[in-house]
Amino acid sequence: MFESAELGHSISKRTYSREVPKLREALLDSQYDLFQDGRFPVMVLIAGVDGAGKGETVNLLNEWMDPRHIRVAAFGEPSDEERERPPMWRYWRELPPKGKIGILFGHWYTDPILDRVYRKSKQPQLILSIEEIVRFEKMLTDEGALLLKFWLHLSKEKQKKRLKALEKDPKTRWRVTETDRRHFKLYDRFRKVSELALRQTSSASAPWIVVEGEDARYRNLTVGRALLAAMRERLDQKPAKPAADRIPPIPRPIDNRHVLGALDLTLKLDRKKYTELFALYQGRLNLLSRNPGFRRRSAILVFEGNDAAGKGGAIRRIAAALDARHYRIIPVAAPTEEERAQPYLWRFWRHVPQLGRFALFDRSWYGRVLVERVEGLASEFDWARAYPEINDFEQQLADNGAIVMKFWLAISKDEQYRRFKERQQTAFKRFKITPEDWRNRKKWEAYEQAVCDMVDRTSTAVAPWTLVEANDQLYARIKVLKTICERLESSLKR
Amino acid sequence: MFESAELGHSISKRTYSREVPKLREALLDSQYDLFQDGRFPVMVLIAGVDGAGKGETVNLLNEWMDPRHIRVAAFGEPSDEERERPPMWRYWRELPPKGKIGILFGHWYTDPILDRVYRKSKQPQLILSIEEIVRFEKMLTDEGALLLKFWLHLSKEKQKKRLKALEKDPKTRWRVTETDRRHFKLYDRFRKVSELALRQTSSASAPWIVVEGEDARYRNLTVGRALLAAMRERLDQKPAKPAADRIPPIPRPIDNRHVLGALDLTLKLDRKKYTELFALYQGRLNLLSRNPGFRRRSAILVFEGNDAAGKGGAIRRIAAALDARHYRIIPVAAPTEEERAQPYLWRFWRHVPQLGRFALFDRSWYGRVLVERVEGLASEFDWARAYPEINDFEQQLADNGAIVMKFWLAISKDEQYRRFKERQQTAFKRFKITPEDWRNRKKWEAYEQAVCDMVDRTSTAVAPWTLVEANDQLYARIKVLKTICERLESSLKR
Repeated sequence: MFESAELGHSISKRTYSREVPKLREALLDSQYDLFQDGRFPVMVLIAGVDGAGKGETVNLLNEWMDPRHIRVAAFGEPSDEERERPPMWRYWRELPPKGKIGILFGHWYTDPILDRVYRKSKQPQLILSIEEIVRFEKMLTDEGALLLKFWLHLSKEKQKKRLKALEKDPKTRWRVTETDRRHFKLYDRFRKVSELALRQTSSASAPWIVVEGEDARYRNLTVGRALLAAMRERLDQKPAKPAADRIPPIPRPIDNRHVLGALDLTLKLDRKKYTELFALYQGRLNLLSRNPGFRRRSAILVFEGNDAAGKGGAIRRIAAALDARHYRIIPVAAPTEEERAQPYLWRFWRHVPQLGRFALFDRSWYGRVLVERVEGLASEFDWARAYPEINDFEQQLADNGAIVMKFWLAISKDEQYRRFKERQQTAFKRFKITPEDWRNRKKWEAYEQAVCDMVDRTSTAVAPWTLVEANDQLYARIKVLKTICERLESSLKR
Repeated sequence: MFESAELGHSISKRTYSREVPKLREALLDSQYDLFQDGRFPVMVLIAGVDGAGKGETVNLLNEWMDPRHIRVAAFGEPSDEERERPPMWRYWRELPPKGKIGILFGHWYTDPILDRVYRKSKQPQLILSIEEIVRFEKMLTDEGALLLKFWLHLSKEKQKKRLKALEKDPKTRWRVTETDRRHFKLYDRFRKVSELALRQTSSASAPWIVVEGEDARYRNLTVGRALLAAMRERLDQKPAKPAADRIPPIPRPIDNRHVLGALDLTLKLDRKKYTELFALYQGRLNLLSRNPGFRRRSAILVFEGNDAAGKGGAIRRIAAALDARHYRIIPVAAPTEEERAQPYLWRFWRHVPQLGRFALFDRSWYGRVLVERVEGLASEFDWARAYPEINDFEQQLADNGAIVMKFWLAISKDEQYRRFKERQQTAFKRFKITPEDWRNRKKWEAYEQAVCDMVDRTSTAVAPWTLVEANDQLYARIKVLKTICERLESSLKR
């Protein structure tokens, strides 16, 4: 894969001086078009061999283009905050929004490759990391990102020469670090591991572009022109029709029995029993949240349900049992402008709690396969791929220690009507009912179907759904509290 | 994921009798439309819990439809032939062609799941197998296959009941095997491992459909209707436009230097030296082919090159050093009708040699990214995804012990002209030159570019390309022979 980047490519000074001004102008134009167009983000990943000019290339791109619309993200050692989240969290934070260019320097390839080179990890771990990258990049490109991955390469001989030259010159000696020298000794291993990583992650939509790094003029012009060509091609295309056609339809249960219909919505609890159980479970929950084992775990609770099913009430009852410093309620409404400029999971990654904390999501990432699906806000291509993407997201949370619990609060259509009417008639509850609620109600069956598909496809061992019979609020709240206590107990025991 | 399939679904005898005739008629209609249409194959994978009716479902589908257009593949223990090839080989053999339905019973999920349940494999191995499946299924659906994966499920309680019922009745007792009883003891493990496999392999284009297996009428009707709906939807769609738009352009070297241009085509060998070296390497190669270590390896040699570059001559020289029982030359021309009805790699999987053998491919799977790309026979979507698919294919070959070597025989444009003319003038060589050769020649630059991209993207540590300066045939033949000997030597040493 490196053959073409060991040919001794070079560009004369004269050609370079002639070409650069034209290139810069075209790049700036494209950058503004990208910003105006606002349809997709551009992600430029700069990776490769030490001494092949990675840092210089990043600086150069910044210099050539308008830095206001470029965001350079350099990743070194993870911060405390980052260490408490899944490994991909730090990259999600730095994704450029639509209309902008993000330059990623030190990125999701660095650790998997170096860990393997230094034998901190074994081959299967490397391959698992690579597969995680493949899924992540597929999500990015499915979301529309233009992802360009440059690998700056030097042959072993050239790297040696380059390090020597830098060391000899007092002005550049500081740039050769101990790490560079150590890496050079491992050149062959590094090459082997990188080659595997490049090979396994070169997809049609996000291929690697290997560039010989020795001659700075050649390198700069190559990277700049490749970036320009890719941006230009995409900008000049008409918006792509989503490839929805190869998604087989989801079958409906032919006997009309489904998980929601199977719920016994007459279940109820009398006030006395409720008060007793409520005190019991709140106490248990509070103790559990202060369990020393919980310091290396976190709890991510997702609340979804029919309108007026009592999500807010249930959430408040849980919060009441917790120390205010240890939880956060995240109400999820329509995405903000900033959030719309990112992959749909981005706004939830933002709120991934650190270890030792509770995050209570009042609605969640499931909006993609519920309201967005039913209302036609997401295409079939987009919502159908959300199931595996969400499972992947929750798996990452769980791998990092999160205990993920998801609740669907179900009420009957009649009970919803009763509550809507009551809300309209009670002054202090009136704000809770909107014309949209009445509109959603008309699509009751479509929502029911979406909920069943969601449960079928995302209720997993790592992040199970609990369906809660919520016609009786007291019953529902106790079932939620009890489920949380039991899951925390069994998770902390292990 | 199994919640919906534990609700006790059932269908009354009356409804069933009423619905089945309609369903059968519609299935038969679709089957003929599929055959007429001939655009895609349908693959129905039947998996799940023992006793949930997998075998019955397969039989039923065969009974309901026209068996001439259905192909049932049941996979038990691999045969000797299969054991000598990569694990996926047996599945490739049994893929249904376009226009037909293939029912896969005992399939690529069976071994990874059971190996893990029986603790013959560890978790990382399971996940790696799953990732291999994900790639394989993605290739199938990218190639246009309609892939339906049914998981027939029984809750633990129901499975117990069902096994008991079968055992009690003397007529059905034989159907409960020792394996079934052993599996039941491992129900919880089996459920956990399956859940992971299902979760990780449910993609938008190939999702799992989980069906409760207890009530035969419900199960049959559900599978039949889901199959019908998916076939109908696809048949009624207009041919899909490929989603080529998200593929970034491949940059060209800005200094016009490339791997082909870097070859020194003046390299030559005099006849005397050639004769001497030829005898030397042929002897070495013969010895290597009889090396005891080679019995657990195989050699897969790929020859590509410009028209008239001398592929055939080089191949014959290698063959001459080998025992006729130990090699096969596979000349690759335009695909046959049977081959066109399959994914493009299918016709090469057919020829994967058993261990201890040589396969010499005179042209190969690289046609996809060479002639098919240049002549516009494959869309960008198709040829761009071929690079990772080919790398994956060659990785599977290598994992199975194959030593994969690829040769590009390069001649200059002038030399090609000279040889074309010579062929036209020599009676016994005239069959070797066709109008197509002259047409290809006009696209010299486009081919050159395709070759460079191919080398950049598929020359890997497991399957490297060797570029051979072939203006002098003697030099070329020796370089090929020498490369083969050296690679075999270093591979057999390890």
